Amino acid sequence: MKKITVIGGGTGTFVVLSGLKKHNFDLAAIVTMMDSGGSTGRLRDQLGVLPPGDLRQCLVALSDAPELWRKLFLYRFEKGDLAGHNFGNIFLSALEKVCDDYDTVIDTVSYVLKTKGLVLPVTYEKTHLCAEYENGTVIKGEGNIDEDNPERSRIVNAYLEPKVEVNQKAVRRILDSDFIIIGPGDLYTSIIPVLLVNDIKKHITNSKAKIIYNLNLMTKAGQTSDYKALDFIEDLKKYTGRAPDYVVAHEGKIPEEILKWYQSYDEMPVENNLHTNGFKGTILKGDVINRSHIQKNSSDTLTRSILRHDTERLTPLLIQIINK
Amino acid sequence: MKKITVIGGGTGTFVVLSGLKKHNFDLAAIVTMMDSGGSTGRLRDQLGVLPPGDLRQCLVALSDAPELWRKLFLYRFEKGDLAGHNFGNIFLSALEKVCDDYDTVIDTVSYVLKTKGLVLPVTYEKTHLCAEYENGTVIKGEGNIDEDNPERSRIVNAYLEPKVEVNQKAVRRILDSDFIIIGPGDLYTSIIPVLLVNDIKKHITNSKAKIIYNLNLMTKAGQTSDYKALDFIEDLKKYTGRAPDYVVAHEGKIPEEILKWYQSYDEMPVENNLHTNGFKGTILKGDVINRSHIQKNSSDTLTRSILRHDTERLTPLLIQIINK
Repeated sequence: MKKITVIGGGTGTFVVLSGLKKHNFDLAAIVTMMDSGGSTGRLRDQLGVLPPGDLRQCLVALSDAPELWRKLFLYRFEKGDLAGHNFGNIFLSALEKVCDDYDTVIDTVSYVLKTKGLVLPVTYEKTHLCAEYENGTVIKGEGNIDEDNPERSRIVNAYLEPKVEVNQKAVRRILDSDFIIIGPGDLYTSIIPVLLVNDIKKHITNSKAKIIYNLNLMTKAGQTSDYKALDFIEDLKKYTGRAPDYVVAHEGKIPEEILKWYQSYDEMPVENNLHTNGFKGTILKGDVINRSHIQKNSSDTLTRSILRHDTERLTPLLIQIINK
Repeated sequence: MKKITVIGGGTGTFVVLSGLKKHNFDLAAIVTMMDSGGSTGRLRDQLGVLPPGDLRQCLVALSDAPELWRKLFLYRFEKGDLAGHNFGNIFLSALEKVCDDYDTVIDTVSYVLKTKGLVLPVTYEKTHLCAEYENGTVIKGEGNIDEDNPERSRIVNAYLEPKVEVNQKAVRRILDSDFIIIGPGDLYTSIIPVLLVNDIKKHITNSKAKIIYNLNLMTKAGQTSDYKALDFIEDLKKYTGRAPDYVVAHEGKIPEEILKWYQSYDEMPVENNLHTNGFKGTILKGDVINRSHIQKNSSDTLTRSILRHDTERLTPLLIQIINK
């Protein structure tokens, strides 16, 4: 059975894992542990727990439990003391308080969610993401880099403070994998945090695994302002030591009202300039946008990341690469 | 297999269920749904959920799951947004939000906790306990009757506002039971709330079940001030329509420092005056106090209900009655 390992966290990783779960692969996710925003950020600050949000998303994505369990883990309280907190995050935090080690936390959640595959925190240690910009500014904390970040210059250096030891299970998994899938996900807040953990870069460089990169649909203000496809690849190379073997890129129109909404955040579609710039890997193109998600939200107050990859559209492209 | 049904909620019911669970009985708990204090009170006020606290205690008491699950469900957050909330309460509240009906909530928790026996909410409807005192005062809300209640006169009438329909599964269970065990538990905030639900009294009166009452160790300010054993029995008769067939009463010294602590709350040991007052049922006496619990807490800041029944001491007395 092909061993496929997804790197990241967040909704992009959720989309990839949910799609691949339905096929006969040996799946794993190596998950960022640097989230410091929202419910996760408050739980880590207030309770001293490891950030649960990205793990939760991966555990649910790989869940084979009845729909009720997945709904429960994604349920967000709307009012009162618990307002804004996600039940799955609370569950992981409470488990961390009563378990002797974090593997037991994950095993316990995997048991109730009947998770098909391995969910591996990239580290079991607490750390924060820091970004140094071309203009000299340094921003500390994933949440501050991710949300309402006013910086528009380039990130010249990303690092972790403090440095942390890698989860050895993640290392073994990287070395064992046939494919490593990176993204979709915000480059500096979902993907590079994983790559920054001690030794991860070295092992990805040396792994026999082919790397598939799901190119972002849109630039992200504060981390990839004005990036084109090649900029994403160059930054990835810096932190993995290798260019991806495959790039999956969106090709197709993005609805005008969505583009306008992104424009108001200084964000725009990622231009695919790989062909004309000597990229040696294979590029797969297709319409990978989730339109039902857009329609569902267009009447509501718009939220961030309104444009998402579509599991049903992205998965066949990934399968095409994997089963080639 | 003998059908035994425990009525109440709270720590007293926990003690009885935990003990009987180890023996070969068909167990059920009919649980008060009127709690309005603490974490439970905040959850019901803020989220509009049914009060989870008493159900949680019963579900954990009957749990056959590994220790970790029981620890998790009883875990109380100490800091931050979640401070004071019990994980089990949050779990039940989130489940209520994603389940179509409350039976599914209980079935789901029973599944993870491997609950041996039935946990039956006495009603699925929302209501509040009210107490009218001899001096004319009316106090509304279980939490207000239970905690820091300054009233020292007698409760002449307890009622629910609004009236609520009984859970028909609880009715069937009452009619089917061989024994109904009442208490230990605060008379007006843990036991009588169950008995106040429409039709419960009628069915207990008519049930073939023998009633065992675990007499309280101490009086409780605000609800049973200056009560002696016979006062408890008289009030119970008023709300069940029958005198208990058996009373289990504590006999033995209570440590002086514990008595002093209770005195500061106007509370004292319940004097057993049943023999001399024409009580027709059987009285079993024994030392049923949990001393390890006292010792564990005596160096800490003392909390309410420091004196508890001991599972290991109480269970043999109950078994003696049941297996007679």
